[in-house]
Amino acid sequence: MAKRTFLILNGPNLGHIGKRQPEIYGSQSMDDMVGLLKQVMGDRADDIRLVHFQSNSEGALIDRLEKAREEGVDGVVFNAGAYTHTSLAIADCLAWIGVPCVEVHISNIWARTGQPLRQQSLMGEQCVGVIAGFGILGYALGVQALHARLED
Amino acid sequence: MAKRTFLILNGPNLGHIGKRQPEIYGSQSMDDMVGLLKQVMGDRADDIRLVHFQSNSEGALIDRLEKAREEGVDGVVFNAGAYTHTSLAIADCLAWIGVPCVEVHISNIWARTGQPLRQQSLMGEQCVGVIAGFGILGYALGVQALHARLED
Amino acid sequence: MAKRTFLILNGPNLGHIGKRQPEIYGSQSMDDMVGLLKQVMGDRADDIRLVHFQSNSEGALIDRLEKAREEGVDGVVFNAGAYTHTSLAIADCLAWIGVPCVEVHISNIWARTGQPLRQQSLMGEQCVGVIAGFGILGYALGVQALHARLED
Amino acid sequence: MAKRTFLILNGPNLGHIGKRQPEIYGSQSMDDMVGLLKQVMGDRADDIRLVHFQSNSEGALIDRLEKAREEGVDGVVFNAGAYTHTSLAIADCLAWIGVPCVEVHISNIWARTGQPLRQQSLMGEQCVGVIAGFGILGYALGVQALHARLED
Amino acid sequence: MAKRTFLILNGPNLGHIGKRQPEIYGSQSMDDMVGLLKQVMGDRADDIRLVHFQSNSEGALIDRLEKAREEGVDGVVFNAGAYTHTSLAIADCLAWIGVPCVEVHISNIWARTGQPLRQQSLMGEQCVGVIAGFGILGYALGVQALHARLED
Amino acid sequence: MAKRTFLILNGPNLGHIGKRQPEIYGSQSMDDMVGLLKQVMGDRADDIRLVHFQSNSEGALIDRLEKAREEGVDGVVFNAGAYTHTSLAIADCLAWIGVPCVEVHISNIWARTGQPLRQQSLMGEQCVGVIAGFGILGYALGVQALHARLED
Amino acid sequence: MAKRTFLILNGPNLGHIGKRQPEIYGSQSMDDMVGLLKQVMGDRADDIRLVHFQSNSEGALIDRLEKAREEGVDGVVFNAGAYTHTSLAIADCLAWIGVPCVEVHISNIWARTGQPLRQQSLMGEQCVGVIAGFGILGYALGVQALHARLED
Amino acid sequence: MAKRTFLILNGPNLGHIGKRQPEIYGSQSMDDMVGLLKQVMGDRADDIRLVHFQSNSEGALIDRLEKAREEGVDGVVFNAGAYTHTSLAIADCLAWIGVPCVEVHISNIWARTGQPLRQQSLMGEQCVGVIAGFGILGYALGVQALHARLED
Amino acid sequence: MAKRTFLILNGPNLGHIGKRQPEIYGSQSMDDMVGLLKQVMGDRADDIRLVHFQSNSEGALIDRLEKAREEGVDGVVFNAGAYTHTSLAIADCLAWIGVPCVEVHISNIWARTGQPLRQQSLMGEQCVGVIAGFGILGYALGVQALHARLED
Amino acid sequence: MAKRTFLILNGPNLGHIGKRQPEIYGSQSMDDMVGLLKQVMGDRADDIRLVHFQSNSEGALIDRLEKAREEGVDGVVFNAGAYTHTSLAIADCLAWIGVPCVEVHISNIWARTGQPLRQQSLMGEQCVGVIAGFGILGYALGVQALHARLED
Amino acid sequence: MAKRTFLILNGPNLGHIGKRQPEIYGSQSMDDMVGLLKQVMGDRADDIRLVHFQSNSEGALIDRLEKAREEGVDGVVFNAGAYTHTSLAIADCLAWIGVPCVEVHISNIWARTGQPLRQQSLMGEQCVGVIAGFGILGYALGVQALHARLED
Amino acid sequence: MAKRTFLILNGPNLGHIGKRQPEIYGSQSMDDMVGLLKQVMGDRADDIRLVHFQSNSEGALIDRLEKAREEGVDGVVFNAGAYTHTSLAIADCLAWIGVPCVEVHISNIWARTGQPLRQQSLMGEQCVGVIAGFGILGYALGVQALHARLED
Repeated sequence: MAKRTFLILNGPNLGHIGKRQPEIYGSQSMDDMVGLLKQVMGDRADDIRLVHFQSNSEGALIDRLEKAREEGVDGVVFNAGAYTHTSLAIADCLAWIGVPCVEVHISNIWARTGQPLRQQSLMGEQCVGVIAGFGILGYALGVQALHARLED
Repeated sequence: MAKRTFLILNGPNLGHIGKRQPEIYGSQSMDDMVGLLKQVMGDRADDIRLVHFQSNSEGALIDRLEKAREEGVDGVVFNAGAYTHTSLAIADCLAWIGVPCVEVHISNIWARTGQPLRQQSLMGEQCVGVIAGFGILGYALGVQALHARLED
Repeated sequence: MAKRTFLILNGPNLGHIGKRQPEIYGSQSMDDMVGLLKQVMGDRADDIRLVHFQSNSEGALIDRLEKAREEGVDGVVFNAGAYTHTSLAIADCLAWIGVPCVEVHISNIWARTGQPLRQQSLMGEQCVGVIAGFGILGYALGVQALHARLED
Repeated sequence: MAKRTFLILNGPNLGHIGKRQPEIYGSQSMDDMVGLLKQVMGDRADDIRLVHFQSNSEGALIDRLEKAREEGVDGVVFNAGAYTHTSLAIADCLAWIGVPCVEVHISNIWARTGQPLRQQSLMGEQCVGVIAGFGILGYALGVQALHARLED
Repeated sequence: MAKRTFLILNGPNLGHIGKRQPEIYGSQSMDDMVGLLKQVMGDRADDIRLVHFQSNSEGALIDRLEKAREEGVDGVVFNAGAYTHTSLAIADCLAWIGVPCVEVHISNIWARTGQPLRQQSLMGEQCVGVIAGFGILGYALGVQALHARLED
Repeated sequence: MAKRTFLILNGPNLGHIGKRQPEIYGSQSMDDMVGLLKQVMGDRADDIRLVHFQSNSEGALIDRLEKAREEGVDGVVFNAGAYTHTSLAIADCLAWIGVPCVEVHISNIWARTGQPLRQQSLMGEQCVGVIAGFGILGYALGVQALHARLED
Repeated sequence: MAKRTFLILNGPNLGHIGKRQPEIYGSQSMDDMVGLLKQVMGDRADDIRLVHFQSNSEGALIDRLEKAREEGVDGVVFNAGAYTHTSLAIADCLAWIGVPCVEVHISNIWARTGQPLRQQSLMGEQCVGVIAGFGILGYALGVQALHARLED
Repeated sequence: MAKRTFLILNGPNLGHIGKRQPEIYGSQSMDDMVGLLKQVMGDRADDIRLVHFQSNSEGALIDRLEKAREEGVDGVVFNAGAYTHTSLAIADCLAWIGVPCVEVHISNIWARTGQPLRQQSLMGEQCVGVIAGFGILGYALGVQALHARLED
Repeated sequence: MAKRTFLILNGPNLGHIGKRQPEIYGSQSMDDMVGLLKQVMGDRADDIRLVHFQSNSEGALIDRLEKAREEGVDGVVFNAGAYTHTSLAIADCLAWIGVPCVEVHISNIWARTGQPLRQQSLMGEQCVGVIAGFGILGYALGVQALHARLED
Repeated sequence: MAKRTFLILNGPNLGHIGKRQPEIYGSQSMDDMVGLLKQVMGDRADDIRLVHFQSNSEGALIDRLEKAREEGVDGVVFNAGAYTHTSLAIADCLAWIGVPCVEVHISNIWARTGQPLRQQSLMGEQCVGVIAGFGILGYALGVQALHARLED
Repeated sequence: MAKRTFLILNGPNLGHIGKRQPEIYGSQSMDDMVGLLKQVMGDRADDIRLVHFQSNSEGALIDRLEKAREEGVDGVVFNAGAYTHTSLAIADCLAWIGVPCVEVHISNIWARTGQPLRQQSLMGEQCVGVIAGFGILGYALGVQALHARLED
Repeated sequence: MAKRTFLILNGPNLGHIGKRQPEIYGSQSMDDMVGLLKQVMGDRADDIRLVHFQSNSEGALIDRLEKAREEGVDGVVFNAGAYTHTSLAIADCLAWIGVPCVEVHISNIWARTGQPLRQQSLMGEQCVGVIAGFGILGYALGVQALHARLED
């Protein structure tokens, strides 16, 4: 069986995860993700190829998503950081590229009350599902969920 | 190692999942969940004991959560259905019982735009994390995530 | 021709109609409804079997609606009282059980301005129609309208 | 016993009912109303005289209501179409002419969510009651309800 | 000195002032206005010619205002009734015809709290001033104020 | 016949009218008011005694109104300046002292769109009427209107 | 003199007061209330009979209030917990049963800013008064205040 | 090839374009439109028959649109003036008559910030497209665009 | 044991309680308060020294609170009248002076629906608790509650 | 006569027009635009030089607009895609560069109700006019309109 | 060269700076300001005369500003405390006195999120500029900035 | 003593200050800033090293801020232009990099009423303080204030 390729896409301020405000975001970095994926998926993780991309630029993230469509990537696990709440352009991109996407957040953004803007996801409407609050593990769960969906 | 006990708690209109609007909620029922848990967790699923409860009554759900606290349940995977959006009393209960809870939704409620009330989760503030949009699989992912968190 | 069965469902604070604030709700009680139905429908009322249920509990009302689906009830004439305005769970239930429902109010709730919350019906979206402002007669009109619709 | 006279008043875009968007408004026209009234009221329909008026003009509708007051009409069954939601002047007219009025809508306007403006009735505050969602039958039910009220 | 001509313009439901809800609008009719003008202005009232127009139609009121511009009317004392709050078209008309206008209300609309829509005047922005709460006398005060302004 | 006494009450920033932003407020000062009253009321102005008070302090204005009640003043012509829009305490005072009050503004505050706060009058609910947009003349019209009302 | 009977009614999550988040709600339990009543009322406490009821269910609280009406209870001291903010059905019940009610909260809910929903009391409109922020003592003050009111 | 017929429909205050506030609306009148159409479309303008109608009355505009449906008009180029923002009845009419309509505005209404009501078009939802800000030329562009669309 | 000193502080329009709108505020005046305190506290009232201050001026109330801090007053029972809803400056003062304060209202302000501004307390956030709806008795209950709190 | 130069500027997700959601955006690509311009303008199209630029990056679009100012471009026809609704920075840029700009949208964004954010154009305030709903043709109409404006 | 005179104006609760909530406002008092001014301006501070005024009363602050106008003060450095957010009367005063004013805040009020009322400055519109977040130093920076502006 | 390094960071449309809308932003350019710093700080300016960066791209500004953290820059004086109001991503960056930042605006953005979006600063919450309205001088005051703060 051919390997599935998933794009792990990270938006602004997510290039330094593990160093950034660890009391909110934990001390694991993206480097820990491969181990976590192995842990949650076991041997099935071998069927999966991960591609990583991070940018602080809204336009560069859209460029990357359009490229993912051309590459025939099987799915996107996307933590758009603050652009989750402000970027209609990213939402538009997800709407047309036709690649299934899971929205991931390291912290549970819906638990950060008192910040109404942070509780609205403009991209959520274009995603298969959402996983939030489980740190770096959330990316692995997102891959697992997309994979299970594609196997159906 | 002692088994972990998780309460799978379902709120209103979730007693007939699989029969209810399958174009939105899919055709899998809660009976399929044990198989899915086995599938995502492999042998580690053997360390887990699941307790199921469903009620259409807000008060009965609170009663069950208070009982879970007394029983020493390790975690709750909770799909509160419509009460997610209207029950401050359930949110208050989660705030005090001290049992970690994952909020689960079968469909991606944040993708159901045009229904603002459905995009607000009163209980989210009291939960570890949220998983939405992956059908019955979401409950299994919720158990897996809570379990991983407790192992840390 | 087989008799049609309609469930007359009353929500909170509607167990004492006729005694409750008669300046708003009038002095007729639910016991007067059968006579009113006979009056508006004449002999056609003989083809109709009415089942009554009242509860102050949101959960019990949902339980009863789910049971109505299983019993094959032909229609529901439903005055949900205050839950009209606050219960998304009842709206969800009506959405899936597939039994046609008429929303009834004893007083004209849209005439009670200055109470914005009372002018919004969460369940209206899931109902065939609405009848409000005609006292107990409104239930009889609701039965008549549902019956006419089923005859078409 | 003297006959009762009721004014059946239709507002904008209601001059072509039966032809206008039948998937929303059905294919019955106002011509079917007399038959429906006979059907719901039986012989009591003989005691009733109906007067019809339709206009696309807010001012002409107010003129007609003021004339109804002078004629001593017993009641008005009024589908104000879009003016339901925007005409404070019609609401003011109903407030002073002292003729009981029933608000009728062919479709269930409260079920057309996503259109907030259409879920607010400015005239509702001045009406005896509301009937919506039962097509042309709703006018007949409105006459019947006004008649019953006058008989009390 | 040439006489000044003022248009006394009344909008919807103001054709029956004196008969309409006298507890709100008083029992004086527009016929009493000439006497009141004489009373407040004394002999200076002889320099003034009044033209009266009333319509329930928004369009007819705009037609009349455009005609006033062509006639060279010196000022308008305008009670637009409910159109005060809903007619942007009347506001647009006042903005371009270049005839000074005083907004008059029989009751003090700003004292009718609980009706937010009634506390907003769309036409106010295009008027010289506002007089409200003094019954029919308000029209006379409006003429007097416009006259004084023109004499300056 | 006994003379009527009216309190001309001016709030914050109204101690320098005639000097303050004349492009908005005109160049007439309160000193011109007696002449204007004579002009609009003719000889009837002789029956009127005016008492003037101005303060920049919300509390001092309330003190003065309470004193007016004790003195048996016949009416108040009150330009509360910015307190019109922010002082609930002044509104409360007018509600209890039982002295009829006319709200006056030099400019037409409802024409100053783009400043929503300035288009809301907290005290309006407690006043007989409102006169705005006629400069210092408005105070004279207010006295005249109150006087006419008392004569009725 | 006959004893007065007061119902001490507690809503959701108030069955474990003293254990629940003591940093917010204190460590006194409802068992301490009798002593506090004795302390604030002295011997007059002997004239009072207290009946306690707690439920997590909105419907059960309404049932209990309706029963209180039938029992002829003299007053209700009611801490509705989260239902204070969401239950229109409880407010409706208080409106019709005709038993005077005092709204009590253990913490000062109006000091918990940043939670707008918690600062709105739907039931407040139907209550004699409100006491909040004094812990368990608040219930005793509520009884004392109701008692004083009945003695008048 | 048969000529296309287009209705050029103008709403309130648009009967005097060229004279009305030329600093906003320019000094060209509707009479200049034929020349502009010729200019933008060249010889293709010969295939087009234009019908003009203007009214200040909302009802008369709806009457005209309903007549256009009966006449089989090919398209409508409609500047509804202020009714753009307030008339739900016109929007309803466009929804059912099935004649393609282009919304035209002489000035760029979206550039007139500070007037929120003017930035909302109730009829826009029922139109093929919108052209605003190009003066009388906009009508010609609207005809051209509708014509191109019909040729496809 | 040393006596406790409490400041009874009254804001605008509270200098005439007993005379002001008795249908809302009752006919007891502040003079009745000492008797009521004796009645609710019995002999313990002897340990308490009350200091009274009333002003219509926001600034004078803040001056008095700052002086209370310097005097070492044990607590404040404060009815800020309309300033409850509009004075952020009083809230700021309570935040810094460090003297415990109870917010008192004679009527149940939360029952005065339809007046949204009156249902918001800016000072509530800085108070120990709130007592509303019990007339002059509320001041005595406030003293009693503060005293009990200090004795803990 | 010198040729006019217009910049055709496209924002995010507009690099693949013709492939992107053709049911919304049609199947014509930007390559078709030159033909359409020829079609609508005839020979006058020869006087026009078009420069194309597309970017997914907000900053790059601003850079290009600043460069257009330096190049002395005669006008901009700008479809800013989702940045229309979220980019205040682009609006600021248009405000200062002094190059006339037409806002173009392929679909009629004002017809996409239920998406309030998409119905607000931040850049509209800085544009000469707006053309929406005519597919790729809209760009050609925009060039034509700008050209006509420059010829005046 | 003549000395410049600046009024340092402080509003409510600013009479005790250094003692009030030092964790928010720091421990420097207004007495430290002269030293700070010397520090930031060096010898140029010798050209400046400072006048200090503090009051808790909104009216007294306005009185002082009006007096500043009469004295010919060169500028005002104004920390209006809570009146920043609630006093329209102070804003009106600044609008007319024609003395340049700098708005100063000790803490960064825009960083105190969760308190929307505190993030709105009614007086900002009438000020030259704003300086917030630098403690007592902010007053010195304000003087320096006003001085530089006057030297231009 | 080691020199302090401050990053002067400018966002979109700030690359041409001095040329851009001088009636709003003045005619001084960033080149004038060094002279102004010398002027306000005197010799202490010699201890300061300034680094300049400007970009129209949100992502590039975040990249530069992250680099500033790595370089150990002592502080940032940041005019984010329009991103002040729309970029949550920049706010997130300031929250984690731990470099003190002063928000600067050339004009007093709080004085530009009628543009609500421009009166909200998303980044303000993460800044030490704000300086607005003093043109290019504001940058120099920002450096001075940060420097003084670091010296403490």
